[in-house]
Amino acid sequence: MLKVLKFGGTSVGTLERIQNVAQIIKKIRDNGDDVIAVVSAMSGETNKLIEYANHFSKNPSNKELDMLLSSGERVTSALLSIALNEQGYKATSMSGREAGIKTTSKHTEARIESIDTTNMKKALAEGNVIIVAGFQGVSVDENRVTTLGRGGSDLTAVAIAGAINADICEIYTDVDGIYTTDPRIEPKAKKMDQISYDEMLELASLGAKVLQNRSVEMAKKLNVNLVSRSSFTPDVEGTLITKEENIMEAPVVSGIALDKNQVRVGMYKVADKPGIAANIFTSLADADVNVDMIVQTVAVDGKADLDFTIPTGDQHKAKTVMESFAKDVERIDYNESICKVSIVGVGMKSNTGVASKAFKALANENINIRIISTSEIKISMIIEEKYAELAVRSLHDVYELDK
Amino acid sequence: MLKVLKFGGTSVGTLERIQNVAQIIKKIRDNGDDVIAVVSAMSGETNKLIEYANHFSKNPSNKELDMLLSSGERVTSALLSIALNEQGYKATSMSGREAGIKTTSKHTEARIESIDTTNMKKALAEGNVIIVAGFQGVSVDENRVTTLGRGGSDLTAVAIAGAINADICEIYTDVDGIYTTDPRIEPKAKKMDQISYDEMLELASLGAKVLQNRSVEMAKKLNVNLVSRSSFTPDVEGTLITKEENIMEAPVVSGIALDKNQVRVGMYKVADKPGIAANIFTSLADADVNVDMIVQTVAVDGKADLDFTIPTGDQHKAKTVMESFAKDVERIDYNESICKVSIVGVGMKSNTGVASKAFKALANENINIRIISTSEIKISMIIEEKYAELAVRSLHDVYELDK
Repeated sequence: MLKVLKFGGTSVGTLERIQNVAQIIKKIRDNGDDVIAVVSAMSGETNKLIEYANHFSKNPSNKELDMLLSSGERVTSALLSIALNEQGYKATSMSGREAGIKTTSKHTEARIESIDTTNMKKALAEGNVIIVAGFQGVSVDENRVTTLGRGGSDLTAVAIAGAINADICEIYTDVDGIYTTDPRIEPKAKKMDQISYDEMLELASLGAKVLQNRSVEMAKKLNVNLVSRSSFTPDVEGTLITKEENIMEAPVVSGIALDKNQVRVGMYKVADKPGIAANIFTSLADADVNVDMIVQTVAVDGKADLDFTIPTGDQHKAKTVMESFAKDVERIDYNESICKVSIVGVGMKSNTGVASKAFKALANENINIRIISTSEIKISMIIEEKYAELAVRSLHDVYELDK
Repeated sequence: MLKVLKFGGTSVGTLERIQNVAQIIKKIRDNGDDVIAVVSAMSGETNKLIEYANHFSKNPSNKELDMLLSSGERVTSALLSIALNEQGYKATSMSGREAGIKTTSKHTEARIESIDTTNMKKALAEGNVIIVAGFQGVSVDENRVTTLGRGGSDLTAVAIAGAINADICEIYTDVDGIYTTDPRIEPKAKKMDQISYDEMLELASLGAKVLQNRSVEMAKKLNVNLVSRSSFTPDVEGTLITKEENIMEAPVVSGIALDKNQVRVGMYKVADKPGIAANIFTSLADADVNVDMIVQTVAVDGKADLDFTIPTGDQHKAKTVMESFAKDVERIDYNESICKVSIVGVGMKSNTGVASKAFKALANENINIRIISTSEIKISMIIEEKYAELAVRSLHDVYELDK
């Protein structure tokens, strides 16, 4: 098997943690597998370098930031390689450039365009463990070091796994997998063995600390089997994120996600002009406001009420846009005391009654549902924020996710 | 003018010092000159990284050390570039690779093979100050980052100056130039305005803290005008090291060097066998012992006495070699209480009586000369170590170097 592993900042946060990662790699290697490990900078290093840069400029050039920040991952890759060499394992570090990672030239937020695996294949054939400095590549245009932005090391690992056709890509963090819901809310939450890409994307909040959507999307696109597991408890199997077809007997519901960072915008008695709703949402999109759930109800006098949600962070931008529609609306209000609870599962597609079960469960707790939106594999409900935890626990229970 | 500048570890040792270097560059730039600055790692950084490596291995692979250690210079180059950008100066950092520096693949001690100046010329033409990460290049064979060993950043600067045909290469340290002798020994020592490459090479000990012979040799070979000056007192002109022809009215004697790291080996009554001396020195050379001055005196009974000096650090190796000649010699002794005083000056070539002046000066102080060796531009004398400082002062005085 060819395994691509990725170790984030906390997994390589100290020299002792790096030694621990070397142990994990040794064990996999001893098992006869080939290994490419992608590493982040030691935690704290990147922030230190940013502080250094800010000493000179509040707004340093992205091109120079990339030169600066890419050094942290190089340090980790060399140290881990030295640790493995010392213990008798052939290993070689590689910068993003040496690993053949070509990117766009949008510095600090570059996108991987292609990976030339020649160098890596040669090193593997020579019996090396390869330690790749994550988060970085080289721009095709300028042949200059770039970085990939947030979650860049995960992306590096997934992209390499795809390009070199690895059997698996394991993302090591300090969390041992994806849970059916947030265990801080529902202690009975269970670690999932496997989950499909689409479910993972819908359950983003459950993976927030361990997997970014950008990586899951790439894994889906490149058909990479992704595993979320912990470098602190390497003997615990993690959660496999794979394509739906690979999952036998998927449960009807896989998990319950909660998102408290939502604001509900209510527009009452919107003027009965043609295309007014379209105008509103186009203006919001132009202002980069991420509109999520939308409900329109037609009132008695023919005027419509419009309800939608936006992320808390977009509220200021949204208010500016809304001002231009003030004359067309009787009243606009903003409600931050709401949250979104989502039930996700590929099994929904072939099962009826999933939604009604949820509505009943919430009704039993006297929780009012303000907005509902459904997709093939997800039911999202906007409820009052004070009921958030109660709703999650009820739903977790009614779908028997602790079993 | 195109100026190549080099700033060492103490010159960029803190963020404040880096800001100071930015000021120096700005002033030169404002004067209309083009600038390529070569920078070292912030002082302490390289040692920190070596400590990290040693946490994992007492003997880390040189290839990995190069990946590890080359990161420090990259950080400085990005920070300095950010500092200049912030103040409205176009600047770009470059790694050794980006600056086109190709080396042998002898990791941690690579030699520069060639420099492709295309990238640098383009950046200069676009009006950039270029900040090159010193001490590093890329091996031609493996296309892998290499480092150049001790004094590597100086070498980078000199090699770039040669390759791009710069008008001058200024090496900034915390010392403002080359003195006629060590000012700690002779407070009347004067900073020299200029000195020839050959004199500088012979006066190595006077430049020990500011210029390595490897860099001076390269400057001589590439005909690069080298300046030793201080980043702490940038308004003070430094010392120009240039070819002899550029120096008008060279003084007869330029400087007095002192080397206390010498051991005198005495071999008494060496057997009268053909080629015995040749055997001895061949064996020493084979054992990598650096023999410096040699004197042979023929004793009355036909047996010879052999005196020579070696660096203190080679004493152990030398003793091992000497054992194999024990049967051919009546007695061997080692004297560490000696030192070498050297008088250097290109003017000697065309002036007589320089040596006798030195001998008289030492005789006046009752200092016995044990060994003498002379070259075209140097007279070296072995004397008892306790007279070292007195000898330096007397010689400094007799050649009127304080004038």
